[in-house]
Amino acid sequence: MKNIIIGQSGGPTRVINQSLIGAVREALESDKAGKVLGMKHGITGVFKEDFVDFRKYSEDQLNAVASTPASALGSCRHKPTSEDCQKIFDVFQKHEINFWFYIGGNDTAETVHIVSELAKESGYPLKAFHIPKTIDNDLRVTDHCPGYASAAKYVAECFLGNDLDNRSLTGVKIDIVMGRNAGWLTAASALARYDSQAGPHLIYLPEAPKSLDDVVSEIDEVYSKLGRCVVAVSEGIRDSSGQLFAEKFAKEVDSHGNLQLSGNGALGDMLADYVKTHSKHEGLRVRTDTLGYAQRSFPGIVSYVDAQEAEMVGAAAVRFALEGRDSGSVYIERLSNEPYESQAGLTELCNVAKVTRVLPPEFVAENGHDVTGAFLEYLRPIVGELTAVRSL
Amino acid sequence: MKNIIIGQSGGPTRVINQSLIGAVREALESDKAGKVLGMKHGITGVFKEDFVDFRKYSEDQLNAVASTPASALGSCRHKPTSEDCQKIFDVFQKHEINFWFYIGGNDTAETVHIVSELAKESGYPLKAFHIPKTIDNDLRVTDHCPGYASAAKYVAECFLGNDLDNRSLTGVKIDIVMGRNAGWLTAASALARYDSQAGPHLIYLPEAPKSLDDVVSEIDEVYSKLGRCVVAVSEGIRDSSGQLFAEKFAKEVDSHGNLQLSGNGALGDMLADYVKTHSKHEGLRVRTDTLGYAQRSFPGIVSYVDAQEAEMVGAAAVRFALEGRDSGSVYIERLSNEPYESQAGLTELCNVAKVTRVLPPEFVAENGHDVTGAFLEYLRPIVGELTAVRSL
Repeated sequence: MKNIIIGQSGGPTRVINQSLIGAVREALESDKAGKVLGMKHGITGVFKEDFVDFRKYSEDQLNAVASTPASALGSCRHKPTSEDCQKIFDVFQKHEINFWFYIGGNDTAETVHIVSELAKESGYPLKAFHIPKTIDNDLRVTDHCPGYASAAKYVAECFLGNDLDNRSLTGVKIDIVMGRNAGWLTAASALARYDSQAGPHLIYLPEAPKSLDDVVSEIDEVYSKLGRCVVAVSEGIRDSSGQLFAEKFAKEVDSHGNLQLSGNGALGDMLADYVKTHSKHEGLRVRTDTLGYAQRSFPGIVSYVDAQEAEMVGAAAVRFALEGRDSGSVYIERLSNEPYESQAGLTELCNVAKVTRVLPPEFVAENGHDVTGAFLEYLRPIVGELTAVRSL
Repeated sequence: MKNIIIGQSGGPTRVINQSLIGAVREALESDKAGKVLGMKHGITGVFKEDFVDFRKYSEDQLNAVASTPASALGSCRHKPTSEDCQKIFDVFQKHEINFWFYIGGNDTAETVHIVSELAKESGYPLKAFHIPKTIDNDLRVTDHCPGYASAAKYVAECFLGNDLDNRSLTGVKIDIVMGRNAGWLTAASALARYDSQAGPHLIYLPEAPKSLDDVVSEIDEVYSKLGRCVVAVSEGIRDSSGQLFAEKFAKEVDSHGNLQLSGNGALGDMLADYVKTHSKHEGLRVRTDTLGYAQRSFPGIVSYVDAQEAEMVGAAAVRFALEGRDSGSVYIERLSNEPYESQAGLTELCNVAKVTRVLPPEFVAENGHDVTGAFLEYLRPIVGELTAVRSL
């Protein structure tokens, strides 16, 4: 019998538990699986042998967990040292675990890659699988990442409401969107355009650097024309020298060496002040929101395709493992757009670990402050319909 | 025939268009109503005679507007001078308008009161009706305000997601909630407690003043016990001397003399920094979100009771007017909780104008950082069910 353990790592998403329970169900339904365990708070739970036994839960209980946002097992952001890896192998050996599934983004894929390589070197028999998730949609190989489409839907709904709000009380509205160095989530704001006047009127992506003065003059131009302006800004916005607007405001660095871009409102406030004081429109009303953790864990909004695909990649990882495939990272392959169809595949861990995938040039408009029609064709089928609205 | 005009004023809500279209439908269906007009951007649209003729819209079009968030006619924040009032009467006379409906909060009720009194003084025959709306729920007389329950539902869903997120990656999470000087919306975060460990663990209301050091020590206590802490903080949080925590950070004052509390992240960032540097737990992970304009205009979340009641008060205002009742403010009277039933009544404008209603003492817990069971009994029937979730 094959004993397996599953963990979750990095930032939560709306559908990461679909992947967890997808993997668990696949294991429980197989006659090849023995123990089906979960590690609490990722690999930090292994050190403490803090495990969940999934065989103790009913199907109803597992289904309820699957539809719950955020990481039900708990998460961590921990890059393992060689010492950590040895400790992991010791605990795995004690519990006779040789199959490990880890759900997360590119830092998580890197962790799986590190542990997997060290297992080979030290002779511990381990098959290690990375199951993708990230609202940032910045993993390579996969067409898109589970978690992204639900976050995209939440962001688009925010902009839909913001645009209607901005029509009611006019001025400039700036929203800061998550996504680190990739503009995928910010780009999703474009879905909110329900008529020809609707915002976001400007979309600033890390992939299209801008100076602060360009931003102000582009806002001024829209405001002169429409008497209002809604702006989507990536937290990773940068100037042409590559310097992040947020850089001087960020105060913390995590153990993977990433700047803390989220969890404070500094970038938005700084931008709003700058626009107010540099706009040619005197007394301009400028408001800003920093879309927060709701982007990744708001319960009330979910993309059905996203939920279904998250479940699919979790189940596929266990299926690949029990079929005898080698360690790897699961990805989504898009088969068709109408009707929308996709399937899961398996690629080598080194293809996904660490490196991020940014928006390709064909998805960024030439003016540097918008997305292209090709991007919307990519995005629409996985997000689904937004709330229907109508202006007078 | 009675010619009527309707306007929207102050901050938008998720269901303010239900009130608008409720009033419009009631007028269109009556054989007593003549012209049924809308004023664009409240009374500022009267000065420009910028009107919408609702008789030109189909029922389907009106229904689509009703379910759209934010103020479809456009809004304003304008306190009229005597000169403004005279201008309004001139324009009303030109269009033979003697019935005016204005949807808004207490500043709006004050505007209706001012215009109504000056109409009497100057002999202009005007019946003026205030239709309530505000996510702040701070109007007097009415059991609750249309717009509040949907905002409460959005806030509760945010905290539900935040609590799950905070279980995944532990630390202190502080969310700043709208509501000005009243804690109603912040208090609604308590609905998110889906099990005995669930947050928000602390709820700070303007009605229960606290020092910054009390806040830090109460957070420390929860963190010591649970290893994490989710905190709901009203933007109107103040110390026992009455000074707003936000006071020194706010930069703008609107024409009604209100501090700008929303539209920036300063209070949240300041609080997070203070907690980080003053906590007894070293290296504490503290994150903050300032829940933004989505609280009032997020399309994807609506309370069905709220939508229905917003429509009811709009329709009732027109019905009262066409029945020959005197100028006044419409309110909601709660008839029963199980099953939930309510009806609309009419009170004098002076009972509602300007003054705000804060949380009564029986809704604030004695510890000063929570709500009571009585408050939850008041709130639950008008908000409805949240998304079902389950932890492992």
